[in-house]
Amino acid sequence: MTPPRRLQLFVAYDGRPFRGWQSQKDGSGIQDHLETAVARLCGGERHPVHGSGRTDTGVHALGQVAHVDVPAARFSFVAQWRFALNAHLPPEIRILRCRWAKPGFHARFDAKGKVYRYRIWNGPVLPPLEIGRAWHVYHPLDRDRLREGAAIVTGRHDFFGFAASRGRAGDPADTIRTVNAVRITGRPGGLLTFTYEGDGFLYKMVRLITGSLIRCATGKEELAGPPPLPAPANRPAKSQYVAPAEGLTLVRVRY
Amino acid sequence: MTPPRRLQLFVAYDGRPFRGWQSQKDGSGIQDHLETAVARLCGGERHPVHGSGRTDTGVHALGQVAHVDVPAARFSFVAQWRFALNAHLPPEIRILRCRWAKPGFHARFDAKGKVYRYRIWNGPVLPPLEIGRAWHVYHPLDRDRLREGAAIVTGRHDFFGFAASRGRAGDPADTIRTVNAVRITGRPGGLLTFTYEGDGFLYKMVRLITGSLIRCATGKEELAGPPPLPAPANRPAKSQYVAPAEGLTLVRVRY
Repeated sequence: MTPPRRLQLFVAYDGRPFRGWQSQKDGSGIQDHLETAVARLCGGERHPVHGSGRTDTGVHALGQVAHVDVPAARFSFVAQWRFALNAHLPPEIRILRCRWAKPGFHARFDAKGKVYRYRIWNGPVLPPLEIGRAWHVYHPLDRDRLREGAAIVTGRHDFFGFAASRGRAGDPADTIRTVNAVRITGRPGGLLTFTYEGDGFLYKMVRLITGSLIRCATGKEELAGPPPLPAPANRPAKSQYVAPAEGLTLVRVRY
Repeated sequence: MTPPRRLQLFVAYDGRPFRGWQSQKDGSGIQDHLETAVARLCGGERHPVHGSGRTDTGVHALGQVAHVDVPAARFSFVAQWRFALNAHLPPEIRILRCRWAKPGFHARFDAKGKVYRYRIWNGPVLPPLEIGRAWHVYHPLDRDRLREGAAIVTGRHDFFGFAASRGRAGDPADTIRTVNAVRITGRPGGLLTFTYEGDGFLYKMVRLITGSLIRCATGKEELAGPPPLPAPANRPAKSQYVAPAEGLTLVRVRY
């Protein structure tokens, strides 16, 4: 029995065939596939795989990060883990890179920030190659309103109104996050890409912000931005406009 | 019974779910889907749909062009054909635009040129979102050899050696084509895109040229380019290196 060593994995996936990142009873989570692949390489022994955070069903990743403690001497070179794991994973999940983690590294607790990308196809007809990877918005969009909205949500705010959760109350400090930047590239009438950088994102926060930005860019409503800090005890109602999962990709985790 | 009028269609498709452009006995060709959609809007009457040319199973299109003669007065506005046809087509086939064709227009005979794009993912691991839309080439590629190869095939040549067909002989004039440009963007070690512009392409010609360019860029072989004109009666052997269909997209047809 060789001593365990912590392996850091950079994982990409197409979110469509899986029930999200998190382990599911029927084994359809991305985490399940990774744990099964690790077990196959470790004589059936299961080792928990910890991700930087969960992604929902249909959300893609180019740079999800995870760690797992494995028998150090299983392979001669750490790079062999990549080939071996990929051989036991479906093609829609790929280990792009792997390396030995720095001592004490934790994929979730050490994450300092994340970058998400949200893709929107704005036009009357969705090109077939965008199915499952962009949100189809056919209403004309106002670029200035998109820019204004992006400016409103950028910064350190109480994002309670942009978090999906059942609880109504809770400590305001729990929903304070910093969005460092929202970059919008492309153009209304074609492909629009929103890139979000922040120190962390609440559950469905990117999709709720995107849904609200699009709603206000159609001119139907003003954006009810996050309230100023310190967060008021009586916070505004939660946004109802959730952009669909398929447009979202976890691009990078910063440590 | 209203007189027929020729409708010009700009069609995009994901090539994966279909057996290529051409009509199939089991109705799985893209042409079949289009003809069925037209028939549904014309009281069951079938009208042949003519494309600018065939694409193979797995080949995508952003700008295939087709024509079909339809009852002129079926809708008040020509744009309604787009909405109505899309409502009867699978989401992997979309009419992006449609208009009344100029008198005498023929999608195939009037085509003056075509633009094809071929996408290659060059690296050890294929990112899942590239499945079915790029050729995965893991061997390191030499950028200079790619450029040299692209220069060799550009121009007016006898492309007999880059045409898939059973016949060995035939008139050399039948396989003379002009490739106006081969543009290579991206970089070895990542996503590479080859864009081909020409007055016409023989069966599998783009895939055969791409396969040969990649073969020579791995340093395994020199590129046996097309012979100079006039084409010799005894032409070189056909290339054996066919790049897979999934990396290819018909981008535009020029008239």
